[in-house]
Amino acid sequence: MKIIILKNNLKEGLSVVDRIASKSLSLPILNNVLLSTEDNFLKLSVTDLEIGINYWILTKTEQKGKIATPAKFLSSFISSISDEKIILKTKENILYVGGENNETKINSFDSEEFPIIPKIEKKEYIEIESSTFCQGLSQVVENASSSQTRPEISGVYISFGKDLMTIVATDSFRLAEKKIFFKKTNNNKCSLIIPQKTIREIVNILSEKEGVVRIYLSPNQIMFEYLIKDFSRPKFQIISRLIEGEFPAYQEIIPKKSETKLILFRNEFINKIKTASLFSGKTNEIKLKIDPKKKRMELSAQDAELGENRSSVNCKIEGDETDVSFNWKFLMDGLTNIKSEEIIFELKKEGGPATIKPVGDTNFLYVVMPIKAD
Amino acid sequence: MKIIILKNNLKEGLSVVDRIASKSLSLPILNNVLLSTEDNFLKLSVTDLEIGINYWILTKTEQKGKIATPAKFLSSFISSISDEKIILKTKENILYVGGENNETKINSFDSEEFPIIPKIEKKEYIEIESSTFCQGLSQVVENASSSQTRPEISGVYISFGKDLMTIVATDSFRLAEKKIFFKKTNNNKCSLIIPQKTIREIVNILSEKEGVVRIYLSPNQIMFEYLIKDFSRPKFQIISRLIEGEFPAYQEIIPKKSETKLILFRNEFINKIKTASLFSGKTNEIKLKIDPKKKRMELSAQDAELGENRSSVNCKIEGDETDVSFNWKFLMDGLTNIKSEEIIFELKKEGGPATIKPVGDTNFLYVVMPIKAD
Repeated sequence: MKIIILKNNLKEGLSVVDRIASKSLSLPILNNVLLSTEDNFLKLSVTDLEIGINYWILTKTEQKGKIATPAKFLSSFISSISDEKIILKTKENILYVGGENNETKINSFDSEEFPIIPKIEKKEYIEIESSTFCQGLSQVVENASSSQTRPEISGVYISFGKDLMTIVATDSFRLAEKKIFFKKTNNNKCSLIIPQKTIREIVNILSEKEGVVRIYLSPNQIMFEYLIKDFSRPKFQIISRLIEGEFPAYQEIIPKKSETKLILFRNEFINKIKTASLFSGKTNEIKLKIDPKKKRMELSAQDAELGENRSSVNCKIEGDETDVSFNWKFLMDGLTNIKSEEIIFELKKEGGPATIKPVGDTNFLYVVMPIKAD
Repeated sequence: MKIIILKNNLKEGLSVVDRIASKSLSLPILNNVLLSTEDNFLKLSVTDLEIGINYWILTKTEQKGKIATPAKFLSSFISSISDEKIILKTKENILYVGGENNETKINSFDSEEFPIIPKIEKKEYIEIESSTFCQGLSQVVENASSSQTRPEISGVYISFGKDLMTIVATDSFRLAEKKIFFKKTNNNKCSLIIPQKTIREIVNILSEKEGVVRIYLSPNQIMFEYLIKDFSRPKFQIISRLIEGEFPAYQEIIPKKSETKLILFRNEFINKIKTASLFSGKTNEIKLKIDPKKKRMELSAQDAELGENRSSVNCKIEGDETDVSFNWKFLMDGLTNIKSEEIIFELKKEGGPATIKPVGDTNFLYVVMPIKAD
């Protein structure tokens, strides 16, 4: 291999792929990035056997070739140099990097040792703006269960309809649902569960990237392809395994009606929760007392050792007076994933699930179980 | 006690003092801040028995009093609330904090349990601009020895002359010396060793603060008093114990002359060291080859497992060709504490100490021992 490449393009590509190159002690080849020439492109490939990424960078290719090089090390090295253009060459299992005042040998591995990243047949796809998709996933992903005892809720569920995808995650204490519409009609209606790690990586990689994502489905794999204007092929592909199993019939637990409905300012609620949380002790419990006559909600928390805190927020209230307790972390997770100024907070009697929704947006919904109700 | 205080002033004061309130398990009273009224001021006091801080905040005092309250907890709580003005009240060992929509009880302790912070007789003092002092200390403080086997070099040495203070720290591998002139004549010439922790805290607290520092000396203690314009008393005082023992005769190891003298750009040198450091392995060793004929210095590092790196920087060179190796971390520590664009780098033959100085500033000097010389 001998190629000439712009350092900043290589640096950007390595920063996308190096997070997947694991510190695998049992299979050290997975610490590497496979560098391979494809016409006038350098292709970077990494995999942890769950997720694979292919990333293409325009180059001047003088001689074809392939090599597997330690990914995080190469990324640190390329970030540290100041050259604008660099030459990459290979000879046996050594990668040579040459710059203006800079000559470097990096011990590498035979490309044949690198595992194959599965290919997905490119038939139908769903296309969506990357920023819309990334934001939708980020609102939901952290609600998946961190326990592996029920693998079907350890991932993010996506149901693809004709012109709508519904993204859901739950750990059985709380649930988030996000709906995103897309333009091109989808004839391949289906639903699947994607590992939380894959969704987290997609959110990380796509954040602040302008472009579109094409989603390709297969029975065991899903592929997300990121494309930008004026680039003759996908910029990168993320291929992930799916989680087997059936996602719970979650729609049954979303309350159809409520006894008490509040409209209040999100930031004020968040700030009051933060203060009360300091006094909530090990249970994380804060109490809410909703008083429709006084048009306010009182928050309180108390800890035998530290002391106690009481505060209140003014709000619009419809329905009954009620007292209810929540784990403040679950309330906060729902509130911080909403961006609207005002929120709708609905409560049910006798410890039934509460819902939080943004005012003026029917596409996001958060359901949370109270600790107990008096 | 009953006082009315601006929340932001209390927040700022607590952020200065709460870092000293230790998580002491053997003496839990040290986790607290002593709140006490002094005329129309609230005084915050903390100590870890090595360093003590007193901090004054203007208040409206309605009733005198004292109480010891968990410092980090109070600081987190006060930071979290949105009130502009708050009322602090005490009743027995409870601190009551009242705001607009906010009522809080914090379990506290009897002020009598709180240790006394030593007082220093206010006779003569040295006065210096706080930003100059803070910057000077920060250039030197991290060179003190982290080992306690030689306590006299575990602190920062300051020698006070007539119109000049000399600040020095060394761990026997490298040494930094900073000279700062002051205006008011000092008749109390002396030198002393201050714990590294004290100096680190002073650097943290004074950074980005405009004002003056007055330094008061006593045989066993030192006091730094911070004053700002239009504030009728010191804003705060930091009182520290001193380290006993005699600081080494460090001037003897500062080379009087050198065989090779280089002038080069600091940032370029730093960048090349960073790249080479990736290949330096566990020894942190990088090699320098100075070639007066080619007017350049070559850097190289090599690691059996990772590979090797060679680079060069152009520089002005006077004197002899030489090869010398350094621990790159020690070189970097010296270079990052210099702010000038160009530096003077002087080398001695046969493994003698090297010196690094900023171009155009004779008040800072860094001495570093090579690993070996060929």
